[in-house]
Amino acid sequence: MKILVLNGPNLNLLGAREPEVYGDMDLQAFDKAITSRANELGIEVDFRQTNSEDELIGWIHEAFTNKLAVVLNPAAFTHYSYALRDACAAHTSAGNKLIEVHISNPHAREEFRQTSVISAVATGVIAGFGLDSYLLAIEQLARG
Amino acid sequence: MKILVLNGPNLNLLGAREPEVYGDMDLQAFDKAITSRANELGIEVDFRQTNSEDELIGWIHEAFTNKLAVVLNPAAFTHYSYALRDACAAHTSAGNKLIEVHISNPHAREEFRQTSVISAVATGVIAGFGLDSYLLAIEQLARG
Amino acid sequence: MKILVLNGPNLNLLGAREPEVYGDMDLQAFDKAITSRANELGIEVDFRQTNSEDELIGWIHEAFTNKLAVVLNPAAFTHYSYALRDACAAHTSAGNKLIEVHISNPHAREEFRQTSVISAVATGVIAGFGLDSYLLAIEQLARG
Amino acid sequence: MKILVLNGPNLNLLGAREPEVYGDMDLQAFDKAITSRANELGIEVDFRQTNSEDELIGWIHEAFTNKLAVVLNPAAFTHYSYALRDACAAHTSAGNKLIEVHISNPHAREEFRQTSVISAVATGVIAGFGLDSYLLAIEQLARG
Amino acid sequence: MKILVLNGPNLNLLGAREPEVYGDMDLQAFDKAITSRANELGIEVDFRQTNSEDELIGWIHEAFTNKLAVVLNPAAFTHYSYALRDACAAHTSAGNKLIEVHISNPHAREEFRQTSVISAVATGVIAGFGLDSYLLAIEQLARG
Amino acid sequence: MKILVLNGPNLNLLGAREPEVYGDMDLQAFDKAITSRANELGIEVDFRQTNSEDELIGWIHEAFTNKLAVVLNPAAFTHYSYALRDACAAHTSAGNKLIEVHISNPHAREEFRQTSVISAVATGVIAGFGLDSYLLAIEQLARG
Amino acid sequence: MKILVLNGPNLNLLGAREPEVYGDMDLQAFDKAITSRANELGIEVDFRQTNSEDELIGWIHEAFTNKLAVVLNPAAFTHYSYALRDACAAHTSAGNKLIEVHISNPHAREEFRQTSVISAVATGVIAGFGLDSYLLAIEQLARG
Amino acid sequence: MKILVLNGPNLNLLGAREPEVYGDMDLQAFDKAITSRANELGIEVDFRQTNSEDELIGWIHEAFTNKLAVVLNPAAFTHYSYALRDACAAHTSAGNKLIEVHISNPHAREEFRQTSVISAVATGVIAGFGLDSYLLAIEQLARG
Amino acid sequence: MKILVLNGPNLNLLGAREPEVYGDMDLQAFDKAITSRANELGIEVDFRQTNSEDELIGWIHEAFTNKLAVVLNPAAFTHYSYALRDACAAHTSAGNKLIEVHISNPHAREEFRQTSVISAVATGVIAGFGLDSYLLAIEQLARG
Amino acid sequence: MKILVLNGPNLNLLGAREPEVYGDMDLQAFDKAITSRANELGIEVDFRQTNSEDELIGWIHEAFTNKLAVVLNPAAFTHYSYALRDACAAHTSAGNKLIEVHISNPHAREEFRQTSVISAVATGVIAGFGLDSYLLAIEQLARG
Amino acid sequence: MKILVLNGPNLNLLGAREPEVYGDMDLQAFDKAITSRANELGIEVDFRQTNSEDELIGWIHEAFTNKLAVVLNPAAFTHYSYALRDACAAHTSAGNKLIEVHISNPHAREEFRQTSVISAVATGVIAGFGLDSYLLAIEQLARG
Amino acid sequence: MKILVLNGPNLNLLGAREPEVYGDMDLQAFDKAITSRANELGIEVDFRQTNSEDELIGWIHEAFTNKLAVVLNPAAFTHYSYALRDACAAHTSAGNKLIEVHISNPHAREEFRQTSVISAVATGVIAGFGLDSYLLAIEQLARG
Repeated sequence: MKILVLNGPNLNLLGAREPEVYGDMDLQAFDKAITSRANELGIEVDFRQTNSEDELIGWIHEAFTNKLAVVLNPAAFTHYSYALRDACAAHTSAGNKLIEVHISNPHAREEFRQTSVISAVATGVIAGFGLDSYLLAIEQLARG
Repeated sequence: MKILVLNGPNLNLLGAREPEVYGDMDLQAFDKAITSRANELGIEVDFRQTNSEDELIGWIHEAFTNKLAVVLNPAAFTHYSYALRDACAAHTSAGNKLIEVHISNPHAREEFRQTSVISAVATGVIAGFGLDSYLLAIEQLARG
Repeated sequence: MKILVLNGPNLNLLGAREPEVYGDMDLQAFDKAITSRANELGIEVDFRQTNSEDELIGWIHEAFTNKLAVVLNPAAFTHYSYALRDACAAHTSAGNKLIEVHISNPHAREEFRQTSVISAVATGVIAGFGLDSYLLAIEQLARG
Repeated sequence: MKILVLNGPNLNLLGAREPEVYGDMDLQAFDKAITSRANELGIEVDFRQTNSEDELIGWIHEAFTNKLAVVLNPAAFTHYSYALRDACAAHTSAGNKLIEVHISNPHAREEFRQTSVISAVATGVIAGFGLDSYLLAIEQLARG
Repeated sequence: MKILVLNGPNLNLLGAREPEVYGDMDLQAFDKAITSRANELGIEVDFRQTNSEDELIGWIHEAFTNKLAVVLNPAAFTHYSYALRDACAAHTSAGNKLIEVHISNPHAREEFRQTSVISAVATGVIAGFGLDSYLLAIEQLARG
Repeated sequence: MKILVLNGPNLNLLGAREPEVYGDMDLQAFDKAITSRANELGIEVDFRQTNSEDELIGWIHEAFTNKLAVVLNPAAFTHYSYALRDACAAHTSAGNKLIEVHISNPHAREEFRQTSVISAVATGVIAGFGLDSYLLAIEQLARG
Repeated sequence: MKILVLNGPNLNLLGAREPEVYGDMDLQAFDKAITSRANELGIEVDFRQTNSEDELIGWIHEAFTNKLAVVLNPAAFTHYSYALRDACAAHTSAGNKLIEVHISNPHAREEFRQTSVISAVATGVIAGFGLDSYLLAIEQLARG
Repeated sequence: MKILVLNGPNLNLLGAREPEVYGDMDLQAFDKAITSRANELGIEVDFRQTNSEDELIGWIHEAFTNKLAVVLNPAAFTHYSYALRDACAAHTSAGNKLIEVHISNPHAREEFRQTSVISAVATGVIAGFGLDSYLLAIEQLARG
Repeated sequence: MKILVLNGPNLNLLGAREPEVYGDMDLQAFDKAITSRANELGIEVDFRQTNSEDELIGWIHEAFTNKLAVVLNPAAFTHYSYALRDACAAHTSAGNKLIEVHISNPHAREEFRQTSVISAVATGVIAGFGLDSYLLAIEQLARG
Repeated sequence: MKILVLNGPNLNLLGAREPEVYGDMDLQAFDKAITSRANELGIEVDFRQTNSEDELIGWIHEAFTNKLAVVLNPAAFTHYSYALRDACAAHTSAGNKLIEVHISNPHAREEFRQTSVISAVATGVIAGFGLDSYLLAIEQLARG
Repeated sequence: MKILVLNGPNLNLLGAREPEVYGDMDLQAFDKAITSRANELGIEVDFRQTNSEDELIGWIHEAFTNKLAVVLNPAAFTHYSYALRDACAAHTSAGNKLIEVHISNPHAREEFRQTSVISAVATGVIAGFGLDSYLLAIEQLARG
Repeated sequence: MKILVLNGPNLNLLGAREPEVYGDMDLQAFDKAITSRANELGIEVDFRQTNSEDELIGWIHEAFTNKLAVVLNPAAFTHYSYALRDACAAHTSAGNKLIEVHISNPHAREEFRQTSVISAVATGVIAGFGLDSYLLAIEQLARG
């Protein structure tokens, strides 16, 4: 099984940006740890990051076309990108899996972070466990 | 007369995505039917689609610069892209035409689809007629 | 094919009332232009206006009973008449067509004009093209 | 004892309109069943329907003048007709009875159906029992 | 000068309905007192009441056509009749006068009575003085 | 047929608490009158009261398991107990009956009493008739 | 009879400030016209203006103590001064008269001008007639 | 390591209640699967269910006192039980772990299910994976 | 005089839970200090705590039946328990005293803590003084 | 110890204004009773009243400069004076005490009285005990 | 050129009040720095502070009468003083300049500080630069 | 010192678009004037414009990495781009400077322009001075 692990805007700053919120591992370390765990479970991971809504939508379309499961950290797009939502809805309404993950717990932060326009069309949501949010998502996909 | 027919995010999935909402014609079929009808009316059509807000804004600017009428299906950008709105406002406040079209009737769907940040700066709105929403817009532009 | 073209309150003042918003053609001119275009398309038009919610509901019921397509400009009833909405819902949920039209673009006017209690139960919506909003609706019905 | 059983807009379509919501009995059958049950209880029923807010208000005034109890299904007027509310308030604040009935349960339907401008000035409310909503109201009036 | 004094729904119950709010004079007494005062000021009064939104709109249209000043007590229509508002707007935006009057002070009553959809298009508003609200309006029109 | 008549918090104070709102009959008198009327109709009544959300949920579960119809006065739980709602939803979505009753008319009281989280999952609602609200519910269940 | 005519903040700029809204008469001219009209009606007027909430409250207290009727143009205090409201409430709840007047029609202006915290405790409200708003108030007080 | 797996109201109906939402496994099967997986990971599980807010709070206190990690499915308490929230806050603010789990994805259901008063004080949230929501939580606790 | 001092959910954790908010005295110390001060004032105190809404309501009923004054710290029930409110309303509307106390100042904390459904039916409110909030309440009851 | 007892707008009318809400003691009697009680406790009281926001802010500044504890009845300023709030915040954030008192219970009165912009920056709040609200505040300050 | 630099309530406490928000320079130091910089630019500054809305309005009127540019730090009046707004609107709508300045960035502080009733009628807004907010405003006025 | 001056969507149309709002200078003229003024102050300016949220975020990241101060006109992104906000927050929370500028005063325009999702994480805000908004920002950065 191959899956896409997709990361939204500003996650390229991981480790450098507000470490008290996001921790001090950088995105390369995330990629490595996730890929390593996925490989143990027999899953091939394509790990990507973009600040571009457009590119992120394209990746969801790629997953849709190829029926690949997706682990998505939509970052700030969570709160307003209905375009991303529509892409995710196309994907999951066709029976594909898409797990929304968050590094920190959005409900414990600013008011605006408590609105997700993505969650309603995600298969499930995992939030608050740092890197482990991704690992749990991978393990869930491995569970089948 | 030459016009731009511009399509926003996820419309490249037309025919493949949620056919009970969007029908089963694909975007190429839309292009062909619209171009064919436009040609009958002596209108040249430049039919485009993008998932990129940036690219869509650029196309509106191109229409603005060249004083071309626009048929715009803003798709999910309808609900939040004030940047697209400002581009449309520049276009129509200069006396150019821009018709907002929707394939399905947004008012008959989710709550969030009932807010349009574009409509207030469009020349007019046509929604709910599938492909025919575009054809009506073309015919209206042909009417002059 | 016979259709009803129904006009709500204050539209009898067309041409006399706020011409900068509604133009200076009067309702008789609208009737004539619409009937003429409809006849070209082989459609018989019954063009009516009323200030009465009750009478307008009755006309929708007449269309419902006779399975006639409707072009409806609900005027100010758009914003509050749930009774009219229920009549329209009875009509369209039985598979009949009802196109909501507006002369001006309500989204470009006062805040309260942006709420439509009718749109969710209409087949489609056409707004902002003056008389042409009606002609487009007729042409769409002619398209079948 | 004589009472008025008053029905608001679109209820003349009963049996023909959205039978999955309103059932397939028509209004004549309602009249017959209600009158029959009322007669058993020694109550004379005047059963009426109108799509007209004005006529409905007039009937409430008639009840007010003659101190007749009322069973009222305000249908869509429930949600916005403050004019009907004022008529009902005049009636009940003078010590007369007015029971608001609904065929279906408005709380199990669209959001807007959950607001009643009538309930606050009704003697009581019975909703969700189809024809039986009326019969219960009649029986309650018979109870005295 | 001739003016129309127009009264909305339930005002025919004046004197009989909730006298602690509306006083115990009936509408005929209002007509008489208003006409008498108007005649002193050289004004001819046409005093009318209706429970019908439709009829009331028609009377505003009559005033519009004949450029007559209007004293309007919209009663419960105050709070929701955008159709009546549009009629009043047509009248006043053409430079005619329309004074909105209320017998009691709506701000001292229920929450919903504090919203007026009419006031924004009225020449002015006089509320809270019982019969005198009308007399003040007449005197203001007499002032020219 | 056996049914449960379930009463929520503070109803044990009936007759002693705010008699101008709730009347001066106590809960034992309610039980007696309801049981008596039910017996006449061949219905066995199990009449209970609790201040405990937990116990009330347990009783709904008991009804669910045994497919017993329920007459429920949720009292103040009406306004916030989503746990009770979920129990009722389990019951009615399985085709069982549950009638929500209220002694007084909540719409004629404080603002917060106008929100019911229970009504949307009840079979029907009867409010405002004092003890008779229960009797009507019993009679409706007897009607089958 | 002696009355106080009290004017709130910025009314000292009358005639100089935004004449398209407030006209070009200055406050001295208002005083003169109002006093003149009042004297004709046998009323002594004490005409005052202040930008100070404190001073305005003191004047209402003075009226309260001496049981003088008040004509009050609260100007911008209309929209937020609960302190002024409490003073007015003390005055009118003791049976004294206080008429709220406005030169322009606040409902035809900005959104925030549509909220009055004063109206609910005023005897009545007169708005939209320029200087005549005051004269009407004086005449109403003269009427007794 | 010993942990508490705590289940809120109506979860005792699992398997019997709305299986299209909650699946057809019952709570005993959940207990067995969860305990089995936990044991593999060297974790002792104390699996409990209650309809009582009070009892659930007591269990959180027990975990707090004994510094046990908690997996909590608050069910309908999610949406309003600030008392449960305060218990959870006491627990997590002392450095203990509490993972909020949901069987179905609340964001894909009714509006009211999108508000969680618990999430802001939980360590993390896992929703939408049925039984696997619990297993993921267990695995995350095992991860340390 | 005997009074009840009643404490709501999670107050059994006092001293152990978030001491920066609630201080480090435990509930036994509160009981002792309050009882000691009450005894000085000739008041017998029955000091209780519960996490159960049901039990708390029962205690208010006990006070109601025996006409005992109550000092109530409703803790998190403050924000949603309309059932507790109804119990308190029964108590105070019968002329009994009930003082709502809070250890910390809810207005200086999270948004949701600023809504109290209890305050409107309490005799008075004392908040923000730690243990002293109770002592002040006792002293006020002693004052008679 | 010396403290300031500060009273906001309209409290000079105490005893004369709405005695059913505020009682019939006048402010001089309040001063006397409060001073007398304070003296017993070895506290010197400076008791003042003003209708002026400006003067009240100045008094808070005086307390701030001299590190005096304050008992403040902000009266209607409670609901909107952010300027007074900022003064109080300066005072309490520097570690000084300020107790907000109210004669009546604002939560049992009009909706707007339930918002306090002061409470969040007060040390504590005491409301609903008439004169005793002040005495309790004094006693609390005496407690140290 | 002469300008007024006007400071609203509590700014006299600058340097003494919450230095982590407002810095530790006092108002005299602000005056000196601003005057010094203004003099370099050939501008005469009249620097004032008041806690009085009334006095501040008077100063704006003075600027209006003398056509002086204004630098205004409205402090807490920013959030509610429509009276101050009306004074500012009179000033700027006559073509005079008024720059709103804030020492700290209100958007980074409490929710209520994000509403400004002044900004809509100011020439421009400068916020967040401490003393430099004033200097920038002076320099902008110098620029002409 | 080198700084980035970054311009958001549609600002490439400056001079051509709605000149009554934005003036008739084009962006090149802005660049030239800003660079010229910056050079005088010894600041090197890199002036850029993009319609792409993605590119703009990248530029903020570039500034973050190189610790460059930023002058940002986010244009329509101001109102919804939480992705841009997160980039800005990363930048300023690391102690770098970012000044938000606007050519026109957003508070004097449409309602939606009054919400900024950027301001809370900006160092400061300057709005309403046309080109000078940028010059002031440059001068402030020069001030150090």
